[in-house]
Amino acid sequence: QFAAESAAQKQDILTDLCQRRHFISGDGLTYTSLMQGSHTLGPLGVEMRRSLVSQWWNSVILSREDVLPIDTLHLLPREANLSKSLVMALNLEHIKGHILNQNVNHEQLISSLQGPAGNCGFLRQELLYGALMEYAPCLELWNKKLPFGLAEIGKCFHSVPAEENVGKNPSRTGERMVASLVWFSSPKTSGQWLDFWHRQRLQWWQKFAQTPSDFSSSELQDEEGRRNTLIQYRFPWGTETIEILCNIGDSVLTQMHSGSSTKLQARDGRKSVIPHLMWVSGNLDRGLLAFLFDALQQRESPPIRGKGLRREVLKLHPTLAPVKVAVDMGTGPAVDLRLVCQGLSAELREHGMFIWPGYMEGTHSPMEQLFTRYDEMGVLFTVLVSENTLENGLLQLRNRDTSLRETVHVSKVTDLVVQHITAAKKL
Amino acid sequence: QFAAESAAQKQDILTDLCQRRHFISGDGLTYTSLMQGSHTLGPLGVEMRRSLVSQWWNSVILSREDVLPIDTLHLLPREANLSKSLVMALNLEHIKGHILNQNVNHEQLISSLQGPAGNCGFLRQELLYGALMEYAPCLELWNKKLPFGLAEIGKCFHSVPAEENVGKNPSRTGERMVASLVWFSSPKTSGQWLDFWHRQRLQWWQKFAQTPSDFSSSELQDEEGRRNTLIQYRFPWGTETIEILCNIGDSVLTQMHSGSSTKLQARDGRKSVIPHLMWVSGNLDRGLLAFLFDALQQRESPPIRGKGLRREVLKLHPTLAPVKVAVDMGTGPAVDLRLVCQGLSAELREHGMFIWPGYMEGTHSPMEQLFTRYDEMGVLFTVLVSENTLENGLLQLRNRDTSLRETVHVSKVTDLVVQHITAAKKL
Repeated sequence: QFAAESAAQKQDILTDLCQRRHFISGDGLTYTSLMQGSHTLGPLGVEMRRSLVSQWWNSVILSREDVLPIDTLHLLPREANLSKSLVMALNLEHIKGHILNQNVNHEQLISSLQGPAGNCGFLRQELLYGALMEYAPCLELWNKKLPFGLAEIGKCFHSVPAEENVGKNPSRTGERMVASLVWFSSPKTSGQWLDFWHRQRLQWWQKFAQTPSDFSSSELQDEEGRRNTLIQYRFPWGTETIEILCNIGDSVLTQMHSGSSTKLQARDGRKSVIPHLMWVSGNLDRGLLAFLFDALQQRESPPIRGKGLRREVLKLHPTLAPVKVAVDMGTGPAVDLRLVCQGLSAELREHGMFIWPGYMEGTHSPMEQLFTRYDEMGVLFTVLVSENTLENGLLQLRNRDTSLRETVHVSKVTDLVVQHITAAKKL
Repeated sequence: QFAAESAAQKQDILTDLCQRRHFISGDGLTYTSLMQGSHTLGPLGVEMRRSLVSQWWNSVILSREDVLPIDTLHLLPREANLSKSLVMALNLEHIKGHILNQNVNHEQLISSLQGPAGNCGFLRQELLYGALMEYAPCLELWNKKLPFGLAEIGKCFHSVPAEENVGKNPSRTGERMVASLVWFSSPKTSGQWLDFWHRQRLQWWQKFAQTPSDFSSSELQDEEGRRNTLIQYRFPWGTETIEILCNIGDSVLTQMHSGSSTKLQARDGRKSVIPHLMWVSGNLDRGLLAFLFDALQQRESPPIRGKGLRREVLKLHPTLAPVKVAVDMGTGPAVDLRLVCQGLSAELREHGMFIWPGYMEGTHSPMEQLFTRYDEMGVLFTVLVSENTLENGLLQLRNRDTSLRETVHVSKVTDLVVQHITAAKKL
């Protein structure tokens, strides 16, 4: 359990750890800048988010029979974005020519910036518009049957408050990885589907958590009286939304395809209907932070000179931990030990796991220092190859969660690790 | 073998097929618009590109011990982009305020558009700059040892020639999926590394091809006398570059981090050096098109009313084929058959495969029509569940490449399919 005195302290410890261990990077990270996405991901963060993306994809697309993957444009026409704080994309050469060749006043200039002359579109803020555009072709592919869903994961952009941008040139535009599902169902089943997806999504988030109850949901009525659901995580500084489920009816679809409602008609049994829409939109960068905070634990390290020290471990879920195994070596004939390490790593890599090649460093750290580092990286297992291994094939396998070391034969390591991860997936 | 009379015909046939089968979409696709990336991907194209991305990631990052994954910003400062044809990202509200509140002339306006006032950065055209920014922190993570690589896959943006944009509002900005590796090595081994990566990359492309010789490489000297290598594919209309390997020396790194060259020093054995850079940049959207053209074959279909017909099959490599298995049912008790189909599909999906639920359509197509459709979709195997299956568990398994149907027990299907794909991966 986490023993730090206060929420602020937990936040500082995690931010520091994540920067030292290359999960995230950025200057002066506050909770505002973390929530705005004003940080970037280091290699461990990238690999962890890749796992998160892949789990989302499996759970929403691959494991179902009724969701199709789509991929839509990053630059959209003006009407595609709901918020007023738009980021325009303009071709520098076009706009220069336009400003210099025409004798326009400032108001005309602004309207022409948004017009055909300079306008290359606006950076997307959400993935909803793209899915609405894909509805008609995918409906055809789907033989016009309801229900079905269209899912996409991709970067979206948002403006960052001016106070976050003081002194920055270029000023920062927020970027975040969004996972979106638009679900088309018959109007009469839309309520049940919202309940279904609400349960499915909340369970998905909780599945990877050490403390599932920190992930919760709450209902919200919008101005038009429609039910929305927020999935939230209890960060040290307060509860923040990581995913939102909205019941958006059918109006957005009919408005967009005005005048061609036959194209929108889908089959609900024998009836022909305009589908009802539900939209799930999750911020996977916030989700990543949530799982990092959730995973942070402290434990007593073995006393050094009689003094007990606390140290941190990131107990990331086995499927989310970026590094599954660190392969390291003790003292002994370096060339031979390295060969064993390389062979074992290659075998583990064949299962698509990201392996940390500690043996390549060429410096020997005291064992406890090594374990401290790998615990902070959330490494599931540490393998220690030693002189012994050359004689009888036995090595040490240390488990992050139990801190226990087992003596294992080199030929059994891969199976043990794969079984551990597979078992955790199924829970 | 492909029997179409001319290259132009092959192009038409493939474009038509890919649109009908939801690999790509777009209006009036010419080879220019395809190369510019003015199309979008349909669900089958999205899933196929996801496989391509995952194969690239496995081959360049996961299967190696010396490459780290990174993820960098989409919006960059001006100096990050090499080409002059930049796409600026501007915050609409900021720029409005700026234009209206200040009494600037047009020249001042242009320079201020690019200045701190309006400038939110430029859309990235390549992934090189981001990797250079990540060099110093990743060097530290890597214990300062050479060689190592930084790899990223992400969207990049490019201006589209005006003639491709006639009548489009907003005008289209080109988007493409780029896979990039920046390789840092000691100056004296840089030549060998270029050769190594040249071989590695060319083999990678050829590995998935029906006609590997259509993927080739050629050398090119740039203005400064440095060797570059292009990896190309022979499209029906001519040879096009799909990936480029450049030897870019060390100047770009020292320029960028001017004044802090100690930060750049890496260890090469016992010496301290500024690394030499090699950059691999592949366009995975072009790569996808290359593999689609490569996979297109025609075969005689069984004569209908005495008349032989040619039909198309996409012989996509088993790892790239978006749909691994289509599960369909014949006539019989619909509810029972559907249950069998669902159970089998769920079992196949557990292996992360994208399964086509033909049984959900509720309409019965003649068998040959079904096979024609699935061949065009590049579906590896078609499973046909029938009344027979309910009695003795036997079903029909049809292989795309041989057109042969086997009678197989329902419990054996998953193993057969998984073995087929695993075997193809290892070749």
